[in-house]
Amino acid sequence: MSTTILDRPVEGQGAISRDEIRDLYDAYYATLDDVRLHDWPEFFIENCLYRVIPRENYEAGYTLCTMQAESRGMLKDRVTGLTRTQMYAPRYYRRFPTAPRIVGEEGGAVLTRHNLLLVQTLIDKPSDIVMAAVCHDRIVRDGGRLRFAERIVVFDSEMVPNSLVYPA
Amino acid sequence: MSTTILDRPVEGQGAISRDEIRDLYDAYYATLDDVRLHDWPEFFIENCLYRVIPRENYEAGYTLCTMQAESRGMLKDRVTGLTRTQMYAPRYYRRFPTAPRIVGEEGGAVLTRHNLLLVQTLIDKPSDIVMAAVCHDRIVRDGGRLRFAERIVVFDSEMVPNSLVYPA
Amino acid sequence: MSTTILDRPVEGQGAISRDEIRDLYDAYYATLDDVRLHDWPEFFIENCLYRVIPRENYEAGYTLCTMQAESRGMLKDRVTGLTRTQMYAPRYYRRFPTAPRIVGEEGGAVLTRHNLLLVQTLIDKPSDIVMAAVCHDRIVRDGGRLRFAERIVVFDSEMVPNSLVYPA
Repeated sequence: MSTTILDRPVEGQGAISRDEIRDLYDAYYATLDDVRLHDWPEFFIENCLYRVIPRENYEAGYTLCTMQAESRGMLKDRVTGLTRTQMYAPRYYRRFPTAPRIVGEEGGAVLTRHNLLLVQTLIDKPSDIVMAAVCHDRIVRDGGRLRFAERIVVFDSEMVPNSLVYPA
Repeated sequence: MSTTILDRPVEGQGAISRDEIRDLYDAYYATLDDVRLHDWPEFFIENCLYRVIPRENYEAGYTLCTMQAESRGMLKDRVTGLTRTQMYAPRYYRRFPTAPRIVGEEGGAVLTRHNLLLVQTLIDKPSDIVMAAVCHDRIVRDGGRLRFAERIVVFDSEMVPNSLVYPA
Repeated sequence: MSTTILDRPVEGQGAISRDEIRDLYDAYYATLDDVRLHDWPEFFIENCLYRVIPRENYEAGYTLCTMQAESRGMLKDRVTGLTRTQMYAPRYYRRFPTAPRIVGEEGGAVLTRHNLLLVQTLIDKPSDIVMAAVCHDRIVRDGGRLRFAERIVVFDSEMVPNSLVYPA
């Protein structure tokens, strides 16, 4: 069973442990909750795939999506655009992920899945849910740390919420 | 302390480890989120008790509940009914459980408790909460895997949400 | 790395393990969900700091907050006030914390951070979110068990929700 292997990483051979995966997600979501956007692209490898896609398209096999980036550079461009327009000022986001589930391994990469609830709070209004999603991620060791090689955020809607200008 | 015992399952004696319990819940909720309803009854033993009950009734000791099944066969009947009417088509559900807490052991069974947030997304509408609940489960080893001998979902409401046609 | 140390508590020296921290939060949130308010102050040391504060004030370095207690006695007074007025009768609260992240250690204390979603259900109404927050806690061993030396609940709003008469 793959998880057993993962629980006993072989020293010096780059196996990925459950604890490391947990630490990766903790750091990733804390970075986004704290709106440290410039740190966000560093969680991805250079030739990453980042995609936010409605569930209906994902399940039908369409690639038409709300946001896509095919490199870390594209993620950085995204951040530059966001920080220039300052659209994120008058609202807060907070992320509530479930515990990551390890669903497979492929050539040194670990495949995980978990649910994500994105909660938005506008100033002087009650909090509400802006996105309920499942994340399909591919995690690899790169440059001495774990990074996302692929992150597909599949959200339960046909709508494109305004909030999707922000990373998930 | 029971959790210490559970962390060190005795080989060949069928003790239940924390990791196995985590895997059970991961698989259970992924099955429901993916609407693989025909797989759902397999998570229960043949003579199971499955009950969805309002908090007020539960705390008062009443057994009057929104849904009850007293065998795996009754769960299968439920699935047959659901898939025939196709009521689940125009909306999505996603489940956000907290980590399961082990609260006791009884003759080879493990008793757990965790909270469950059930989020509904109608097409072209924002997501909302359809149920906030606490789950009281009894887990046993049966037929080479873990299954629920008992699952009591206690939800914080007097209302019977429409959504309760779907399993929780 | 501190988490490695914490995973191997030294017997008899009072180091704090990840499992103990998890157990502390499980018990803490179950106590509040079950409205066992008289047990709540026991989760804090005598000279604790408990604070519920809007994110804007917290990030600006202001200490102006919605609720503050500087001792276990003040928490007990709070409970007495709440149980007398019976304000908590016609609604339910349920807490959805993310897994606690260990962010540091200081002289035997463990510093943690996690997100908290507080969901409210009024009788005959659908559930909604009453608070999205991040908790910055300082945990110590005190009197043979873990307790909070400090708990700062930073919520994403400028508003003071009615619900904050209840502990978080």
